Amino acid sequence: KLAEALSSQYGLNVFVAGLLFLLAWAVHASGVGKSDLLCFLSALMLLQLLWMLWYVGRSSAHRRLIRPKDTHAGARWLRGSITLFAAITIILGCLKIGYFVGFSECLSATEGVFPVTHAVHTLLQVYFLWGHAKDIIQSFKTLERFGVIHSVFTNLLLWANSVLNESKHQLNEHKERLITLGFGNITIVLDDHTPPCNCTPPALCSAISQGIYYLYPFNIEYQILASTMLYVLWKNVGRQVDSHQHQEMRFRFHGVVPGSVLGLTALATTIGVVVVYLIRIGRSKTKSESALIMFYLYAIVLLMLMAAAGLVGIRIYRIDEQSLDESKNPARKLDADLLVGTASGSWLISWGSILAILCAESRPPYTWYNLPYSILVVLEKYIQNLFIIESIHREPEKLSEDIRTLRVVTVCNGDSMPFASSCPKSGPAAGAGAPQGSELPPVASGNMCLSEVGGKEEEERSCEGVPAPALCPHFLQGNAQRRVLRNIAAFLFLCNISLWIPPAFGCRPEYDNGLEEIVFGFEPWIIVVNLAMPFSIFYRMHAAASLFEVYCKI
Amino acid sequence: KLAEALSSQYGLNVFVAGLLFLLAWAVHASGVGKSDLLCFLSALMLLQLLWMLWYVGRSSAHRRLIRPKDTHAGARWLRGSITLFAAITIILGCLKIGYFVGFSECLSATEGVFPVTHAVHTLLQVYFLWGHAKDIIQSFKTLERFGVIHSVFTNLLLWANSVLNESKHQLNEHKERLITLGFGNITIVLDDHTPPCNCTPPALCSAISQGIYYLYPFNIEYQILASTMLYVLWKNVGRQVDSHQHQEMRFRFHGVVPGSVLGLTALATTIGVVVVYLIRIGRSKTKSESALIMFYLYAIVLLMLMAAAGLVGIRIYRIDEQSLDESKNPARKLDADLLVGTASGSWLISWGSILAILCAESRPPYTWYNLPYSILVVLEKYIQNLFIIESIHREPEKLSEDIRTLRVVTVCNGDSMPFASSCPKSGPAAGAGAPQGSELPPVASGNMCLSEVGGKEEEERSCEGVPAPALCPHFLQGNAQRRVLRNIAAFLFLCNISLWIPPAFGCRPEYDNGLEEIVFGFEPWIIVVNLAMPFSIFYRMHAAASLFEVYCKI
Repeated sequence: KLAEALSSQYGLNVFVAGLLFLLAWAVHASGVGKSDLLCFLSALMLLQLLWMLWYVGRSSAHRRLIRPKDTHAGARWLRGSITLFAAITIILGCLKIGYFVGFSECLSATEGVFPVTHAVHTLLQVYFLWGHAKDIIQSFKTLERFGVIHSVFTNLLLWANSVLNESKHQLNEHKERLITLGFGNITIVLDDHTPPCNCTPPALCSAISQGIYYLYPFNIEYQILASTMLYVLWKNVGRQVDSHQHQEMRFRFHGVVPGSVLGLTALATTIGVVVVYLIRIGRSKTKSESALIMFYLYAIVLLMLMAAAGLVGIRIYRIDEQSLDESKNPARKLDADLLVGTASGSWLISWGSILAILCAESRPPYTWYNLPYSILVVLEKYIQNLFIIESIHREPEKLSEDIRTLRVVTVCNGDSMPFASSCPKSGPAAGAGAPQGSELPPVASGNMCLSEVGGKEEEERSCEGVPAPALCPHFLQGNAQRRVLRNIAAFLFLCNISLWIPPAFGCRPEYDNGLEEIVFGFEPWIIVVNLAMPFSIFYRMHAAASLFEVYCKI
Repeated sequence: KLAEALSSQYGLNVFVAGLLFLLAWAVHASGVGKSDLLCFLSALMLLQLLWMLWYVGRSSAHRRLIRPKDTHAGARWLRGSITLFAAITIILGCLKIGYFVGFSECLSATEGVFPVTHAVHTLLQVYFLWGHAKDIIQSFKTLERFGVIHSVFTNLLLWANSVLNESKHQLNEHKERLITLGFGNITIVLDDHTPPCNCTPPALCSAISQGIYYLYPFNIEYQILASTMLYVLWKNVGRQVDSHQHQEMRFRFHGVVPGSVLGLTALATTIGVVVVYLIRIGRSKTKSESALIMFYLYAIVLLMLMAAAGLVGIRIYRIDEQSLDESKNPARKLDADLLVGTASGSWLISWGSILAILCAESRPPYTWYNLPYSILVVLEKYIQNLFIIESIHREPEKLSEDIRTLRVVTVCNGDSMPFASSCPKSGPAAGAGAPQGSELPPVASGNMCLSEVGGKEEEERSCEGVPAPALCPHFLQGNAQRRVLRNIAAFLFLCNISLWIPPAFGCRPEYDNGLEEIVFGFEPWIIVVNLAMPFSIFYRMHAAASLFEVYCKI
């Protein structure tokens, strides 16, 4: 316990000091240059490298010992995605090195050292996480705790650094748009860090600096994913493992066609919308407004579908009251806390928009779309979190299969429990449900139980209207229910990835809308958005990851 | 589990919306007036009032049922201190009502309704916490969870509101001082909310508005204390109680004369220093500098003493390796998390100061005192947290008394374990230890084991130098050790109260120092300080409360 407090306090101090360094650089504090910051970060990374080498060396020396493992930590898909993001991070590192070589006349050496260190750090860290993410460290507790917590906060600082760079870039683009649209009344200072010398092949250089900003979102995800994995490792230090239930995660793809088709449609549409948005926004006033309206309408429809799907999922869980798995599990607790915590970031932005619309003095018509959009963002995250938290607390299927069979038999004996059916009673019911979620008819008329997407009330009526549930038990026999849940999980997974794209790649209506900036003032609103947006973006990725896990588990 | 996620998300949304309301008011958003904000807060309070009435009524109707209680939650001293703070909050409410009556011509009605609601709310909430803080709610889980979480976040919002008012006041005072000192280069806008009409008896009115700001710190403490108690209540909803060890807290006052004398001296000195500081600061440049130097020197000495005392305490715990109490306990976990979490606030400020000193271009001599001061603030909190966390995880004495006796017997049998003695070997050892903590000689030469305050190394040497530990076992027989620990706890308790006073009553060298403002810029630094300072102030009060508990437990 003391070791835990010792190390967490050390980590917090490193983090706080690093944050202030970043802040100092961001506000152009006198005396704090970019090279100081990069030096500091490189030093932290080198320290972590040394520790990782020591740890890997020590554990390969003691290879013979059997050590306890936390089977929940570091799932294979998690390690897979971290490898993917790490690969892109290394490409980003290479681009940065290229940028440095191009501008090498007028950049300090640290700007070259930093990407090299970062690439090495990324490589070794991925290797480390592949090999040791499941470890439960028992010996040498203090030194290892310090090493792990140092790694956690080093990654968090690298995350904050990337976020800051990305935010600066976004803010610059936003300011350029404002200049184009002729808002001269705000004192605009572009905060560009273009070096004061020329790059040798100019075309290549500008391509590189463009490319860097398109790769940043992946780097940001990599850093935060690495910190969460390391944090779970830290929470596991010295833990007593009680249960050895090894739970095999299987990824199966049959029976989720409707969910994934719908999800992929959403994904494709999103990419289209983002491209159109980025082309039209900031060109002229009318073009901006039409882009905003398009984005809002699209997002409203998508969010409504997602909320409905989430409600159906929760409803199915409610029907089938399984006992929950309440055992202690750091990885799962962290997942749930992160979902709720990072959702708060986007709630902050949404409530800001709602407040702005309610209090604004003049409201151009297109801003009205912002109100349902913001409310839906709040609601959708609320419902989705409930669904995910409920799912990850379910016990794995195998253990409770017999109990379930028992219940179905009871129902078949004529017990008229108020089951909301998951059965495809499509036909007229689906037709009545359609106006609520008006984009799905072609897919929903397939016979895969997706008609519930149309809304909960509809579904309840359709079942209470039928007096004798003679057909229902047949369809509820585990499999159909499971298939619906898996469709929902697949759909929500793809939708979350879709909704990750717009803010990560610079489609931020919170900036372009203009209403909040008028009500709150330019600076305060920019600060709020820049603080909350990273969490909002991370939320989408993290929700997608959790939904993937849910999908594999169902 | 689902109910927990449901209610916590509801609470977070209320909180986030309220925070944005506060922000909107703070930045003078167009369309958001003070009366809207007060309306919102009053509505929240009324909702909580209704819920509390319902809960109290329901539980008095079902009085006969025996319900489980969490003996750790809502300790008597906690309820005592909340009553004290609540009384002052009600006085504050009366003053506000008086203020409203005086200016009634030009204030909106909400400014009168708010303090009345707040006073009623305070009264009923204190009654509620006295009666129900230990409850473990088992039935009607969802509604009760919502009510409790609503109460938690209502109190947090009231806290944020008070903090904001207090910060605005402090900032205004700071700006006035800057104007006096002739810093005209910063664009200064006083943010005063004096109503635009005259008060009937002007002397009384200005006295009231002065008085209000002296009472705010207590109101702030009341709100945060109430939220933590309600949060523990929320965590306890539906919990299974496992252990019924009722642990009687006794407050005994014998044998802690040195610790409390030293602590009371510190307290008295602090009050003197604060008064002198507030009189001198901002009058002229030399007077300000001398006030700053005086404050820094005093704080450095005090923090050094506290850090040394904490180290000795940890050392004593290290010697005597008792098993820790690892049982689940929401109240205790919250205590530990709050200590580390709120300490981060002051670490943020301290690292800012350190960075500013290291990076500044010109450093007036008095700013050098800031460096050791900031480093000591970081260190002292680090050590103190370790001490408190270790203490609250100790098992109560009675259970382990027999184990201890066994160990002492083992030692007496000639085993030469490396005990660092807690025995008063004063004489030359205390003399050699004195230079490190140079303020304590008169007290330390008393024979009450306080000579260890002089430093850990000294202590180790004095014991390793003596080859045969013939005398030590006699003194280590539980009692002497306990007495030292209780002295340390009493001393730290009083010191923490001392250190709560300066920032709470407007003695903030972070503002007056000027160095950080130059390095970071005026606005960013003010934002950092205003965000971190409330946590820093709360830390002191919370540490004092925890130390009081530690004291009673030893």
